[in-house]
Amino acid sequence: MKDIQVRSLFREPDKYADQEITVHGWIRTNRGSNKFGFIELNDGTFFKSVQVVYEAEFLNNFEEISKAPIAAALMVKGTFVLTPQAKQPFEIKAKEVVIEADSDSDYPLQKKRHSMEFLREIAHLRPRSNTFSAVFRVRSLAAYAIHKFFQERDFVYVHTPIVTGSDCEGAGEMFRITTLDMENLPKTEDGKIDYSQDFFGKETSLTVSGQLEAETFALAFRNVYTFGPTFRAENSNTARHASEFWMIEPEVAFADLSDNMDLAEDMIKYIIRYVLEHAPEEMEFFGKFMDKGLLERLTALVNAEFARVTYTEAVELLKKSGKKFEYPVEWGIDLQTEHERYLTEEIYKKPVFVTDYPKDIKAFYMRLNDDGKTVAACDLLVPGVGEIIGGSQREERYDVLKSRMDELSLDEKDYWWYMDLRKYGGVKHAGYGLGFERIIMYLTGISNIRDVLPFPRTPKTAEF
Amino acid sequence: MKDIQVRSLFREPDKYADQEITVHGWIRTNRGSNKFGFIELNDGTFFKSVQVVYEAEFLNNFEEISKAPIAAALMVKGTFVLTPQAKQPFEIKAKEVVIEADSDSDYPLQKKRHSMEFLREIAHLRPRSNTFSAVFRVRSLAAYAIHKFFQERDFVYVHTPIVTGSDCEGAGEMFRITTLDMENLPKTEDGKIDYSQDFFGKETSLTVSGQLEAETFALAFRNVYTFGPTFRAENSNTARHASEFWMIEPEVAFADLSDNMDLAEDMIKYIIRYVLEHAPEEMEFFGKFMDKGLLERLTALVNAEFARVTYTEAVELLKKSGKKFEYPVEWGIDLQTEHERYLTEEIYKKPVFVTDYPKDIKAFYMRLNDDGKTVAACDLLVPGVGEIIGGSQREERYDVLKSRMDELSLDEKDYWWYMDLRKYGGVKHAGYGLGFERIIMYLTGISNIRDVLPFPRTPKTAEF
Repeated sequence: MKDIQVRSLFREPDKYADQEITVHGWIRTNRGSNKFGFIELNDGTFFKSVQVVYEAEFLNNFEEISKAPIAAALMVKGTFVLTPQAKQPFEIKAKEVVIEADSDSDYPLQKKRHSMEFLREIAHLRPRSNTFSAVFRVRSLAAYAIHKFFQERDFVYVHTPIVTGSDCEGAGEMFRITTLDMENLPKTEDGKIDYSQDFFGKETSLTVSGQLEAETFALAFRNVYTFGPTFRAENSNTARHASEFWMIEPEVAFADLSDNMDLAEDMIKYIIRYVLEHAPEEMEFFGKFMDKGLLERLTALVNAEFARVTYTEAVELLKKSGKKFEYPVEWGIDLQTEHERYLTEEIYKKPVFVTDYPKDIKAFYMRLNDDGKTVAACDLLVPGVGEIIGGSQREERYDVLKSRMDELSLDEKDYWWYMDLRKYGGVKHAGYGLGFERIIMYLTGISNIRDVLPFPRTPKTAEF
Repeated sequence: MKDIQVRSLFREPDKYADQEITVHGWIRTNRGSNKFGFIELNDGTFFKSVQVVYEAEFLNNFEEISKAPIAAALMVKGTFVLTPQAKQPFEIKAKEVVIEADSDSDYPLQKKRHSMEFLREIAHLRPRSNTFSAVFRVRSLAAYAIHKFFQERDFVYVHTPIVTGSDCEGAGEMFRITTLDMENLPKTEDGKIDYSQDFFGKETSLTVSGQLEAETFALAFRNVYTFGPTFRAENSNTARHASEFWMIEPEVAFADLSDNMDLAEDMIKYIIRYVLEHAPEEMEFFGKFMDKGLLERLTALVNAEFARVTYTEAVELLKKSGKKFEYPVEWGIDLQTEHERYLTEEIYKKPVFVTDYPKDIKAFYMRLNDDGKTVAACDLLVPGVGEIIGGSQREERYDVLKSRMDELSLDEKDYWWYMDLRKYGGVKHAGYGLGFERIIMYLTGISNIRDVLPFPRTPKTAEF
């Protein structure tokens, strides 16, 4: 019989009852006496391990197997037996066990509690632990849920470029890309570095957002989204910031701010529902060991109708609340996490979109409201985290955009193609950005972004 | 009634027959007399446009609409009428037409044939043309098909890092990433550039492959895949190479070369089937205008059982063929495109895996065969293109890998975590890489990689 993956055993145990099966996997634990032993065998396809029972009576190599170390890879042939009376739902009674790859007693991931910091140092092995097995399966499922959500709605997935020739995206500090010989940089006549000799013939950087390019596609396909890596060269060592992270940026033509919020709300609920349904064991684990209130909070979110409040109203509510904040609230300030969390956790007790922020604290491309002071922006705040999505209706009016750029001393020439969109059928459109790691942290209860990225990149850290 | 997307009209016309509907979209063509006119309205959700008929009798703004230019965005209300006798299957008889965003007579994408070179210069507008609308929808669908294929098989999607701290991947020239002040580089005492002051505290580059990191995940989850951007700083201006492109790299534990080929064959067929089914209009367009033999070739591929031949046998077949090649064939050479195409197009007349290449022309991590001369590699060659996939079983034996690295003067220390995988349950495993743009070119008949990337990056080019 072809070898069976452990996931199939857990998903359809009855199908295999009392049959001879072959499985492969790695030893998670191995305890034995001189007559028999038990191995928890994990093949990575499922969060849980299958129990293998082996007996000296049936195995020629009983001695060898009883000493097989953690992480050794095995082939096991035996009878699959349902065990309704026991702690585990079934077990394999081994007839043949072969060590396919040995391990060593210096294996760093022994069966004991390790600190998250230590596990980061062995990022090549940590997916073999319960926590990271669960994190990275949830990450994979959430990524797929996002694609599925947009594809079911006929959105076009667009790969916006990673290498960018302009530093005009305005969302943060950028990494430079070069193939110049750093020890011997070419110079122009006036002593400056001659970037015309660089690979792309000019200065280039890593993208901080695909939004501007996504807009070009939205004005062709109507409904589009990006999902790719994004970079910030900010030297900030916080639990919520990484230098390399993944972002989703939908963009929709013929849509206004309200349509934008509808889409964001539907998407968030879809992702959470999908993960709860497809990773019940992992989610139960997070609810037990990471965050006791997790499943309740996620279920509440899925069933809630998200609130909507303007920034101006939100500021009033915060001021009236009587709550003492570290940063005092006043119209015009950028809301801090403490304000955001108070709004969503205490005032609304559910997710809330805050809309129509002062233009001075938002990006140049957001659509100016009729009051001349605020822009059609929307941030989604969720309990336990604060801001998880930021979006806006885009300024589609050429003249208004131009005068906003003049105010900010942005040169129209650098944005010629972006301005072109406003000349040729530049209809109203809107979009938002979701930091992928934010939603994974929200889903898992993991509090440090370094622990939801397979190989995190942060200031002074680019290992593996 | 809520506005209807043009895709729905084409997919379920009967549902809307004789109903009042509202649509939005952009003008592709507008021809009128002084009594009535016809607009081809495209909203980007579907390859084809819907015909709007407007009459002076019903529209107050007939004059304005009859002069509305290409690319202007409209709102159209009217009656949806099936027209079984006409060229187009249905039309909208307009009762109200509003210009939501105007366009201009200098719109660069007028209704005429443009060269592909010119269209690259307006990459922000070209998705509005038939060709690029079709290309980028197919690209989106193919990307989704890949995710769907792997997720249906419970593979874990892993985001391997883009920024890499080692230049050990060995697959090509790399781009450097830095935040150092290029005009004023910090130096160490002995006059070298002090990279310890760089953002990541050392030299970093853009990844050329996620394979080595994917192996760490395969040895935890068994079945994994990557799908992300990849970079090559090679100064080669060909129609088949871009500096930034997307790659898919599955990696499977407990799998050998034969399993690897089974997976690759299933995947390729799945992608093609999915696109044929979900983009019939686009595929018909490519078959008509890009490559007359396209649909026939794709259908043949989906139904073929891929051949398998060793490199050694393939070399014999090529030598015996009597065909004069530009590069003569001899055991030990790297097969050129002319050889690959002759094998798949003339000898096998279907896709063929060539396996077990000489170790000297393949990467260090490929598993050494018992003959000591060849490695367990497999390249998939397809008619019309040549190589489309390259893969191998990985060297899982610590000692063999070590001595291979010694031969190539690779320093074990730079690969400590990769070597660790061979110490702790490093069972047999295999994987392959598919260049995403290659399969899009294959699917569409587009012959230049610059025309299947939304905003291509090539030497001296990083516009938009």
